[in-house]
Amino acid sequence: MAGPFTVGELAVALGGEVRGNADLLLTAVQPLATAGPSAISFLSNRKYRRVAESSEAGCLLVAPDVDVSGERTMIVCDDPYVGFAETMALFHPYTPPKPGVDPRAFVDPSACVEGARIEAFAWIGPGSKIGFGTWVESGAVVGAGSIVGNNCRLMPNSVVMDGCLLGDRVWLNPGAVIGGEGFGFAPGPQGHTKIPQAGGVQIGNDVEVGSNSCVDRGAMESTQVRDGAKLDNFVQVGHAADIGEHALMVAYSGVAGSTKLGKGVVLAAKTAVLGHLQIGDGVQVGVASVVSKDQPSGAKVTGVPAIEHRRWLRSATAFSDIPELLTRIREMEQRIADLEAKK
Amino acid sequence: MAGPFTVGELAVALGGEVRGNADLLLTAVQPLATAGPSAISFLSNRKYRRVAESSEAGCLLVAPDVDVSGERTMIVCDDPYVGFAETMALFHPYTPPKPGVDPRAFVDPSACVEGARIEAFAWIGPGSKIGFGTWVESGAVVGAGSIVGNNCRLMPNSVVMDGCLLGDRVWLNPGAVIGGEGFGFAPGPQGHTKIPQAGGVQIGNDVEVGSNSCVDRGAMESTQVRDGAKLDNFVQVGHAADIGEHALMVAYSGVAGSTKLGKGVVLAAKTAVLGHLQIGDGVQVGVASVVSKDQPSGAKVTGVPAIEHRRWLRSATAFSDIPELLTRIREMEQRIADLEAKK
Amino acid sequence: MAGPFTVGELAVALGGEVRGNADLLLTAVQPLATAGPSAISFLSNRKYRRVAESSEAGCLLVAPDVDVSGERTMIVCDDPYVGFAETMALFHPYTPPKPGVDPRAFVDPSACVEGARIEAFAWIGPGSKIGFGTWVESGAVVGAGSIVGNNCRLMPNSVVMDGCLLGDRVWLNPGAVIGGEGFGFAPGPQGHTKIPQAGGVQIGNDVEVGSNSCVDRGAMESTQVRDGAKLDNFVQVGHAADIGEHALMVAYSGVAGSTKLGKGVVLAAKTAVLGHLQIGDGVQVGVASVVSKDQPSGAKVTGVPAIEHRRWLRSATAFSDIPELLTRIREMEQRIADLEAKK
Repeated sequence: MAGPFTVGELAVALGGEVRGNADLLLTAVQPLATAGPSAISFLSNRKYRRVAESSEAGCLLVAPDVDVSGERTMIVCDDPYVGFAETMALFHPYTPPKPGVDPRAFVDPSACVEGARIEAFAWIGPGSKIGFGTWVESGAVVGAGSIVGNNCRLMPNSVVMDGCLLGDRVWLNPGAVIGGEGFGFAPGPQGHTKIPQAGGVQIGNDVEVGSNSCVDRGAMESTQVRDGAKLDNFVQVGHAADIGEHALMVAYSGVAGSTKLGKGVVLAAKTAVLGHLQIGDGVQVGVASVVSKDQPSGAKVTGVPAIEHRRWLRSATAFSDIPELLTRIREMEQRIADLEAKK
Repeated sequence: MAGPFTVGELAVALGGEVRGNADLLLTAVQPLATAGPSAISFLSNRKYRRVAESSEAGCLLVAPDVDVSGERTMIVCDDPYVGFAETMALFHPYTPPKPGVDPRAFVDPSACVEGARIEAFAWIGPGSKIGFGTWVESGAVVGAGSIVGNNCRLMPNSVVMDGCLLGDRVWLNPGAVIGGEGFGFAPGPQGHTKIPQAGGVQIGNDVEVGSNSCVDRGAMESTQVRDGAKLDNFVQVGHAADIGEHALMVAYSGVAGSTKLGKGVVLAAKTAVLGHLQIGDGVQVGVASVVSKDQPSGAKVTGVPAIEHRRWLRSATAFSDIPELLTRIREMEQRIADLEAKK
Repeated sequence: MAGPFTVGELAVALGGEVRGNADLLLTAVQPLATAGPSAISFLSNRKYRRVAESSEAGCLLVAPDVDVSGERTMIVCDDPYVGFAETMALFHPYTPPKPGVDPRAFVDPSACVEGARIEAFAWIGPGSKIGFGTWVESGAVVGAGSIVGNNCRLMPNSVVMDGCLLGDRVWLNPGAVIGGEGFGFAPGPQGHTKIPQAGGVQIGNDVEVGSNSCVDRGAMESTQVRDGAKLDNFVQVGHAADIGEHALMVAYSGVAGSTKLGKGVVLAAKTAVLGHLQIGDGVQVGVASVVSKDQPSGAKVTGVPAIEHRRWLRSATAFSDIPELLTRIREMEQRIADLEAKK
């Protein structure tokens, strides 16, 4: 942990403007509800304004158009949530350990690991290459011929199988698996014939892969996860899928084989996108949905199968009224029969 | 495996009452359908009474109000399912290996591991502490500064990242990850800014975490899993969530960030609870549901989004009748038009 | 990578018939869209015929009844998708490394590992047995008394707990867990009493288990995964479940305790099958379904809860029209009221 910082120092770092005491010394970032007078907190959602007003935080990060009453010191910045992220990074900077190979690690003589830190029980395969400033933690594995860029972090027991390519600043959380076998079998009367998965995986720069998430290798082509994509825990990327720049895949979301997600796609938790689909840029998929068709850029869809989000919302709301609908229909049928009988 | 035990010995251990031959020697616990004459079995659900009557089990564990015909020896106890659990524990006691550190393990000189068993390729980080009687199996990792209580079991390749706190008798199944990064990013036009996850995880006593399950660390505060909570495989607890005492989270159930589950909450398989919610004590969520709102204590909810369980059940049943509904509506419209034409 | 092969050689190996130039030398298998003149590609689905016709692939694998225009060399075989799988296996043969035990592995003196390859940091427990030609990769664990057959592959950080039995040619992808604890607890007022999980797991021949998938051990009986079953990533097999021969379980599909799947069952992604059910041979379950009842052989079901597939399809389609239904019902009620008033 770093710091303390004065309000003024933080404002300069964040590109924000001080309202109040620029000399106030701050020692921590804390949530609104529990922050103390030497802590900085942030308000990015108006619905928490009341909480912010009663907060004891010494300083608040706020947007230009937000008015929090009281005499509190504030830093005004365009996006207080980004400001919060940057403040957290100032107080909690990531510093990888010094380069060096623990004697209990396995590094194949043909591997290249200059400037990286390799912990005990990490396994670095033949012909692989680990970039400068990268930290390979205990039990992590880098398979034969794989290339890991600079300033990456392979957390304990994460696995990169052979023939994969990782960019710079890629973080693999514990248990993440890059390049496991794609699920490819040709069914037949005597059983399923395995299709060798001979493609690899390419991961761009600034990608984070959550704990125990899986990016499968392709059969003939590489699976792609492009720059800046962020994958939560239990995420699955199928063989030869292609995840666009800055896509967000929330926990348990999965993309089947050969599907292409555009830039900035957001898959909410527990969504599934079926195989061989084209999902345009900026598409947003609601929680627990199954996308079974191509989606144009900018679409917002939800449901099983996924339909336009607002339409789904109306149907989902009406769903709980189906029993009453049945009653009303039964009543109408009776009334119509009565009318018909009177003829 | 321990035993054999006489029926009388078991009855004393379970606090039950013998009907029949207290001297009968029992060598195993077996299911009703396959049990032999030297095995004990149990009947906790009346619907299996027939199976129990035709079972060849030498002894049955039954509730006081259950009458199984025949001359079989029985042990009557208040809760035969708990009795079964206790009998299993008598026949299959858990005995950790003798304390000691395998020379192929890595234990940082600043770590404290007295009275624990550390297997080969386990990695115990600087400043950490492993309690008495705890078993850290091969490939398990305990990060810097983390504290693991007494009589815990960290199964192979389970991971506790830095700055986490585990109580006593905590079991982590293989591949479980405690303290991986929470999924926190501030979105922006140039990509997502990572929010450092500087909080830890606190796990209470008597918690079991299933294979490959994940409890993420918080950003500013610790994620909590309280005493006696049981997590199945593929369970996800998001950053700064709080799982109440004795909660049950069945396979693939996930709780998003900052949500609080009360005591004894039961999440059935594949449920998702969205973030920043308050779920009261004893709430039960049905399989494959998405909880999107706060829930009062005792609520039983199901569906996407989750609604009151019985209401969901009626709607789900009616769901399959929607096509017939459409036909009936079309017919009614015609009949009404006919009536109107006759005016 | 192996090869090159002539078209004639491949046709012999696949049992197919050459149309065109049998002497053409092929160096790779590539997708239709990107294949070059020295590559073989395949056409197994008529909807890609146009893509096939414009493909630059030197040779195509096609079915007898498919007519692709042009002068291209082709191999005609009964099932071109199986032919593709076999061709991939010819170009990308699996060759395990030479037998031998890395000195940095742990092999208990009482274990038997003749003819297997054991990598650094693999852990082979007391009394276990590893078959001939089997490859145990770094960080993989085989528990006490477990038996692993011939020509298996235990990829990095996969775990087989104690007392499990694996057949021949079983592949465990990275992070897969065989024999973790089943989720068994007897609930009670003072908390949940753990039921020791004393059964094991039996895996047949030719089974593949995906990355981070889990097959739990049984409490009293063994969990079964039978010959030829294929499990994708994030698959869960509950305690004492029984997965039939050649079953396919796609990503995130889970089977709860004591349920039996017949031969050739297909569970699409994200499906859940509840506990203690009998699912007949050849049953197919649609994506994201919850099966809550026994299913007869050959059934095709989808939904939550799962109903007959075509019925579900009609209801799911109508689901998005529920709001319009409401409007139509409201209008009819008005029209009926008008008719009634006129009497």
